[in-house]
Amino acid sequence: MQMKALSIGSRARALLLWSSLLTLFLSLSTAKHIPAPFPASAVRPEQLLRSRDRGHDKSPYEAEYFTQTLDHFNFNPPSYKTFQQRYLINRKHWGGPDNNSPIFVYTGNEGDIEWFAQNTGFMFETAPFFKALIVFIEHRYYGKSIPFGGNKDVAYSNTSTLGYLTSTQALADYAAIIIDLKRNLSAADSPVVAIGGSYGGMLAAWFRLKYPHIAIGALASSSPILNFDNITSPYSFNNIVTRDFRVESENCYKVIKGSWQQIDAAAKNQPGRQELRKSFRLCGSNGSANGDAIKSWLMTALIYTAMTDYPTNSNFLKPLPAYPVRQMCKAIDDPTRGNDTFGKLYRAASVYYNSSGQVSCFNPNDDSDPHGLNGWTWQACTEMVLPTSGNTAESLFPASEYSYENWRAFCESYFEVEPRPNWITTEFGGHDIERVLKRFGSNIIFFNGLRDPWSGGGVLKNISTSIVAIVAKEGAHHVDLRHSTSEDPEWLREVRKQEVHAISNWISQYYQELALAQ
Amino acid sequence: MQMKALSIGSRARALLLWSSLLTLFLSLSTAKHIPAPFPASAVRPEQLLRSRDRGHDKSPYEAEYFTQTLDHFNFNPPSYKTFQQRYLINRKHWGGPDNNSPIFVYTGNEGDIEWFAQNTGFMFETAPFFKALIVFIEHRYYGKSIPFGGNKDVAYSNTSTLGYLTSTQALADYAAIIIDLKRNLSAADSPVVAIGGSYGGMLAAWFRLKYPHIAIGALASSSPILNFDNITSPYSFNNIVTRDFRVESENCYKVIKGSWQQIDAAAKNQPGRQELRKSFRLCGSNGSANGDAIKSWLMTALIYTAMTDYPTNSNFLKPLPAYPVRQMCKAIDDPTRGNDTFGKLYRAASVYYNSSGQVSCFNPNDDSDPHGLNGWTWQACTEMVLPTSGNTAESLFPASEYSYENWRAFCESYFEVEPRPNWITTEFGGHDIERVLKRFGSNIIFFNGLRDPWSGGGVLKNISTSIVAIVAKEGAHHVDLRHSTSEDPEWLREVRKQEVHAISNWISQYYQELALAQ
Repeated sequence: MQMKALSIGSRARALLLWSSLLTLFLSLSTAKHIPAPFPASAVRPEQLLRSRDRGHDKSPYEAEYFTQTLDHFNFNPPSYKTFQQRYLINRKHWGGPDNNSPIFVYTGNEGDIEWFAQNTGFMFETAPFFKALIVFIEHRYYGKSIPFGGNKDVAYSNTSTLGYLTSTQALADYAAIIIDLKRNLSAADSPVVAIGGSYGGMLAAWFRLKYPHIAIGALASSSPILNFDNITSPYSFNNIVTRDFRVESENCYKVIKGSWQQIDAAAKNQPGRQELRKSFRLCGSNGSANGDAIKSWLMTALIYTAMTDYPTNSNFLKPLPAYPVRQMCKAIDDPTRGNDTFGKLYRAASVYYNSSGQVSCFNPNDDSDPHGLNGWTWQACTEMVLPTSGNTAESLFPASEYSYENWRAFCESYFEVEPRPNWITTEFGGHDIERVLKRFGSNIIFFNGLRDPWSGGGVLKNISTSIVAIVAKEGAHHVDLRHSTSEDPEWLREVRKQEVHAISNWISQYYQELALAQ
Repeated sequence: MQMKALSIGSRARALLLWSSLLTLFLSLSTAKHIPAPFPASAVRPEQLLRSRDRGHDKSPYEAEYFTQTLDHFNFNPPSYKTFQQRYLINRKHWGGPDNNSPIFVYTGNEGDIEWFAQNTGFMFETAPFFKALIVFIEHRYYGKSIPFGGNKDVAYSNTSTLGYLTSTQALADYAAIIIDLKRNLSAADSPVVAIGGSYGGMLAAWFRLKYPHIAIGALASSSPILNFDNITSPYSFNNIVTRDFRVESENCYKVIKGSWQQIDAAAKNQPGRQELRKSFRLCGSNGSANGDAIKSWLMTALIYTAMTDYPTNSNFLKPLPAYPVRQMCKAIDDPTRGNDTFGKLYRAASVYYNSSGQVSCFNPNDDSDPHGLNGWTWQACTEMVLPTSGNTAESLFPASEYSYENWRAFCESYFEVEPRPNWITTEFGGHDIERVLKRFGSNIIFFNGLRDPWSGGGVLKNISTSIVAIVAKEGAHHVDLRHSTSEDPEWLREVRKQEVHAISNWISQYYQELALAQ
C-alpha cells in the first residue's frame, strides 16, 4: 500500500488535523506530507541545525553507528534484518571504566539527534562534574537512523516498512545499544542515567521503568506520559495555552479569541480574502487566501510560542526573544499600532515567524518538503494518540470537541492504519500512577514547566521519595535541559541544581551498593 | 520454509539434544517432532489430562476466549491479525467488584492450560480465603490458543508463523486480556496477583516487573530467571540432579554413573544389543537396541524424577510414589534383586515409566506424535536458551561441556533460525539482580525447592523487604503450587503459609492505599 496524498477540504477536517498533529514539537515538520492546511514555515530539523545559535558550541561529539535489530519481538528470521542506528558520543569528560564513571544517555525522540544534542546543554554542562560519558541515541526512523538501507523513501513508503516504528521497539534499541556500548568500553559497572525531553522524556521514564537493569535512573523532562487514554482531559492542552496568554494580558487573549470569527468572515468573500492576503503578507500576487490555512498558521505560532516561552532568547523551534508570549501580547496590545485585528495578529505571528525581520512574505500553504519527516504522524496514528485538541468556550481557540473518531478516520484514510489508543496505557500504565508507583520503581525525576501546554499530561506530584516531580510555575517545554545562560532566572538555576542533586544521589547510592557487592 | 524432520545420528548430537531440550517440563513432549533419540513414553498434556488424579476435582472452571492481537509490537495492519486465546475462569469464591475483591491470574506456560489448572491447587485452595476470582490464561501457541485460525499445522509450519511465539508477546497478551476482563467485570480496582510455576513463574515475575500497573504482586514458583547468559553455571542443573541421587545413596549414584559406559559397550555388538533389548524390555522382537536412545530414555527418567521429587504421591508428569528418587535408589540398592546393572537401571526407570506395573514393554524410539507440541523447542531455539547441559567429572551423567555452538547449529538446521542467547537478559535483566532490584520493584515471591535441578537458576536470597526468596531444602519443582494433601510435611505447609501471608500483605496494603486515594 502506498500512502495517499490527502486532500483535506473541509474546515472541520482542517482543524482536526491542526489540533491532532500538533503533538510533540516535531509534529509540524512531520505534517509536511499533508498538502493543506499546514504552514509554509513549519520547522524542519535541518533548518534548525543551520540556524542554531553557534554561540553554544560546547557540544562536540562524534557520530557512531550500531547495527541494530529491526524487530526485537518477532523471531522470524526475515525480521532479523538490521539497520544502522546513529548515536553521538562525547568521551571528553568521562572518568573511564576503571572508575566506573557514569554514562549519560539521551533517549532520542522524533527527530534528528543532532538537534537534540545541540539543545540539551544540560548533559554537556553537568558531564564534567559527574565525569560522565555523554551519549545521544537517535530514535529509529529519524535523522540518519533509517531502516531499509537508510533509504527514507523505502522506510516511509508503506505500513509494512513503517510498522517497526514503535516506542517499544525504540526502547529495546536503547537497551541493545547501551549493553553493547558498555561491553565495548569494558564498562559493565558504569551506571547509566537516561535523560530525555518531551517524547524523549517519556522514553527516558519508560526506559527506567522497563529496563531498571540498564538505567539506574531517569530525568524525564516535560514528558506528558499521562496524556493518553482519558487520564488527562483533552481540554488541558489548550487550556494551558489560553492561560499563558490570558495571564499576560486579558486584552491580548480577547483579541486573539475574537480573531477566528473575523478571519472566517473575511475568507467568505473576495475582498475579505484580499484583505487577509495583504494583512498577513502572503507571498505571491495570485490566488486567494485560505482562511483555514491562515488560522492554522496563527495557531501554530501561538502554541509553539507557549511551549517555548523561555525566559531567555532561544533558538529551539525558531529564533525567539525571551518571554515570547509576553512579546506577542505586547505586539497585540500596543496602542501605537492601530486597532486592526489582522494587523495585531500579524505582528504577534511575526514574533514567532520573523524575529529577524528578514522574511518579506509568508506562505501558509507551503508544501515544499514532500520528502520531509513523517514519522510522528505515523506514531500519532498508531500508539501515540494524545488527545489535546479540545477547546472549551473559554479557549483562546474556537470551541471544539476532541473526536477520536475523526482522528481514526484520518489515519485510516492516510495510512490505512487504525490507531490503538489504549496501547500506551496497556504497555506502560498511567492510570492511578501515584498508587501504582508508590512502592514500585525508583529514581525518576519528572520535570514540568507549567507554561508548557504539555504539562497538563505530566507527573506534577511526588510519587515516592525517589520518584519525584519538579514543577516550575514559570517554566516551558524542557527548559531545564537547555544550555544555561547568564540571564537564567533563579528558579531555573534552582531546578537544575535539584536535578543534579538527585542524579548525584542515585550515583552515590549505586557506588555504595556496588562496593558492598564486591 | 518448512521445518525439517531431523535425523540425528551421532552420539554427540543425541546427547546435545537430550540435555538442551530437557528444559522446562514440557520439553519432552515438544521434542516429539524429533525422531530420535526421544523416549516413547514422553509425557503429553492430553495424556496427563486423561490420567490426572480425579480425586482432586476441587478445580472447576469455565473456558472462555479472548480475541487477542497477534503482534503487539508492530503496527503494520496485517499484523493486526487476531487469534482466539483461551482462559479458564472460576467465579465461585469471588467477592465481586463492589468489594474490589482480588483476581488471581495464572500466567500460563508452555502447555495446555487445563493441565496447569489441575496441578495448581494452591489457587483453588486459597481463593476462598481471599474471595478471589481465579483465572488461568493459556500461553499463545499452546493448548487451544493457537493463532492462524486455531490451526496448529499452520501455526507451527514455519518461522514466519512461529515468529510471534515469544515471551514478550505472551506478557502483552496477559496485559491485554486482564485489562479487558476487568473492564467487562467492572472491576477496575480489584487487585491482580500473578501466579505461575516454572516458565509460567518466570512470566509471573516478569509480568510484575514489566506491568506493575496491572499486577500488584507475583508468586513466581521454581522460575529459573537466572539460568540465562552465563549467570548460572551450565553445570548447575546436572549437579543438582547428581546431588539428589547421591544424598539418597552413594551406591545408587555409583551404579547409575557407571551404567553409561556399560550401555555404550553393550551397544557396540549384537549380543550386547540383544542384552539391552531384553534388560530394558524393549517392544518388538526385531531390530537392535539403540544405546543412545536407551541412555536418553534413562536420563529423562532420572531428571524428571529429580524435578518432581515430591513428598507425596503425585501425578504431574507421571504417576509417581512419594519421594520417587528414594524409590529409584531403593530399586537400585535392593540386595535381593541381583547385581545386574541393567536390571537395576530398568527397575529404577520403572519407578518413573511404570508405577502402575501395567506397561509390558517400552519403546525409547517412539515417535508416534508427529503433530505434538513443538512450541518449547522453538522457544529454546530463539530466546529461551537455558544452558543446563554441562556435566562435571562428578556428574551422575557422562562428563560433557555445554556448547552453545552445537545448539545454534541444531536450531539453524531444524528451524533455520539463529538463537538470541542474550535477548532475555537484555529484555528482562538477571545480571546483578540483587543490586538492580534492591531499590526497584516490590511484591515478588521467588519460591525454590533445592531438590529441583532448576533451583540453581532461581532467586535464592531475599532482594528487598518485599522481593523475597522462599527456599525449601526438601522441595521439588513448584511443589508449593500443588494441591495440598493430608500427608504434606510440615515444611511444605509452612511454605504455603508464608506465601499466603505475603500475598495477604500485598492486598491489605493495596486496599489501604486505595482507600487513601478515594
